[in-house]
Amino acid sequence: MRKIALLIEYDGTDFLGFQLQGQGRTVQGELERAIEEVTGTRSRVAGASRTDSGVHAEGQVVSFRTESRLPPETLLRALNFYLAEDVAVKAAREIDEDFDVRRRAVSREYAYTLAVGPGRTALHRRDAYWVAQSLDLKAMNGAAAELIGGKDISSFTLAGESGRSGRRRVYRAELERRHGDLIDFVIEASSFRKQQIRLMVGTLLEVGRGKRSVEDFAAIVAAAEPGLAGPAAPARGLCLRRVNYREPLFATGD
Amino acid sequence: MRKIALLIEYDGTDFLGFQLQGQGRTVQGELERAIEEVTGTRSRVAGASRTDSGVHAEGQVVSFRTESRLPPETLLRALNFYLAEDVAVKAAREIDEDFDVRRRAVSREYAYTLAVGPGRTALHRRDAYWVAQSLDLKAMNGAAAELIGGKDISSFTLAGESGRSGRRRVYRAELERRHGDLIDFVIEASSFRKQQIRLMVGTLLEVGRGKRSVEDFAAIVAAAEPGLAGPAAPARGLCLRRVNYREPLFATGD
Repeated sequence: MRKIALLIEYDGTDFLGFQLQGQGRTVQGELERAIEEVTGTRSRVAGASRTDSGVHAEGQVVSFRTESRLPPETLLRALNFYLAEDVAVKAAREIDEDFDVRRRAVSREYAYTLAVGPGRTALHRRDAYWVAQSLDLKAMNGAAAELIGGKDISSFTLAGESGRSGRRRVYRAELERRHGDLIDFVIEASSFRKQQIRLMVGTLLEVGRGKRSVEDFAAIVAAAEPGLAGPAAPARGLCLRRVNYREPLFATGD
Repeated sequence: MRKIALLIEYDGTDFLGFQLQGQGRTVQGELERAIEEVTGTRSRVAGASRTDSGVHAEGQVVSFRTESRLPPETLLRALNFYLAEDVAVKAAREIDEDFDVRRRAVSREYAYTLAVGPGRTALHRRDAYWVAQSLDLKAMNGAAAELIGGKDISSFTLAGESGRSGRRRVYRAELERRHGDLIDFVIEASSFRKQQIRLMVGTLLEVGRGKRSVEDFAAIVAAAEPGLAGPAAPARGLCLRRVNYREPLFATGD
């Protein structure tokens, strides 16, 4: 029995999220189907980060066990042949039997993309959220900085979420202009809870529109109480860019 | 009679290019149809840059004459209502009757996006070209620098193209890592001829793969002879980012 890790990219638009459900198309379901086509046996796929319905990934990491003797490069090509065009294997390698891709991850990096301007976006309609009003980026970055450090970020969880600790280490949280009217909110933390980043973006947008001050935002963070955040921004702007491990699992561009 | 300028974005995947043709879906055709819906009269649309079939735009500029008295903000909203989701008006304004959006443009900025890695791309399948081999970016940037300045860049035109002067001013030509495995070739020049950037990218890829040296590339530029370039890279990676005028026409993000 071998354990294989895959680096996965997907356009989340037409998926009901990463995780297998009773019904509907999921990334995990697609991967398990393709692995069965290639290896002849059903394998359970585990993911490093559970992305919600409509959320994209450029660097999801998954693993599965198989008795197949196919080399990783062959698995990569064969899986990409059987997968639909909106999900792809970008790299493949063998890992230790006891390496858990979720528990061993030291951080997850996500980006939430905004297209800001009076008219809607066309080219980025699947991977950015259009905001018509101009935004005070300086204020938004001031607010985002409040997230950095070892913080209880429970305010950015849905009201009524269970009482697990909300303490996380946030390594990075900033808004960057890409080019033209595109702005990326990039955040890296030890881990995230359901809808957490979309609730952060919804609240940061209130700051950017002048509906909340940076001080308000800081007070929301400090309260550490579920349900205080602004409305969740839509899923389509969010992308899991990268899962980090103590030692890089895959040789990639950066 | 007024003249209106529009800032246009489109996903070129399902268009046979910008310019109206006898048959098939074009950006110009879509715009003229929407303008007729909104104003009640047919208007001819002129574009600043003719993008080929499959090429995208984030910052195309077009103009049309109309007797409509609708304010630009109303035109913008009404046009976006009638346009399909893969083309959008991002900004609208009135311009002088004698302002020619093509002739007055001082430069065009394009980006060609590569997704580099062993497995194909999924999220960027419509707007990037997947390259499986790793690339020597330093060599590619050395070659790209040969394009900068006042140069006859006729070598990057199709064999048999007519004998108009190939002399252009190239202000910028460089490869930039975006994040992960994405690389943008950004080029800004006074103007371009048909397929010119895709022929440049095809030739730069030969340099990146070690099939051509930077000196070879420099010799191809110096020869200024149509037909010498490598094969054209596919349209899907190319995007018209911005058209520049002496005075900015639209207030945009950068």
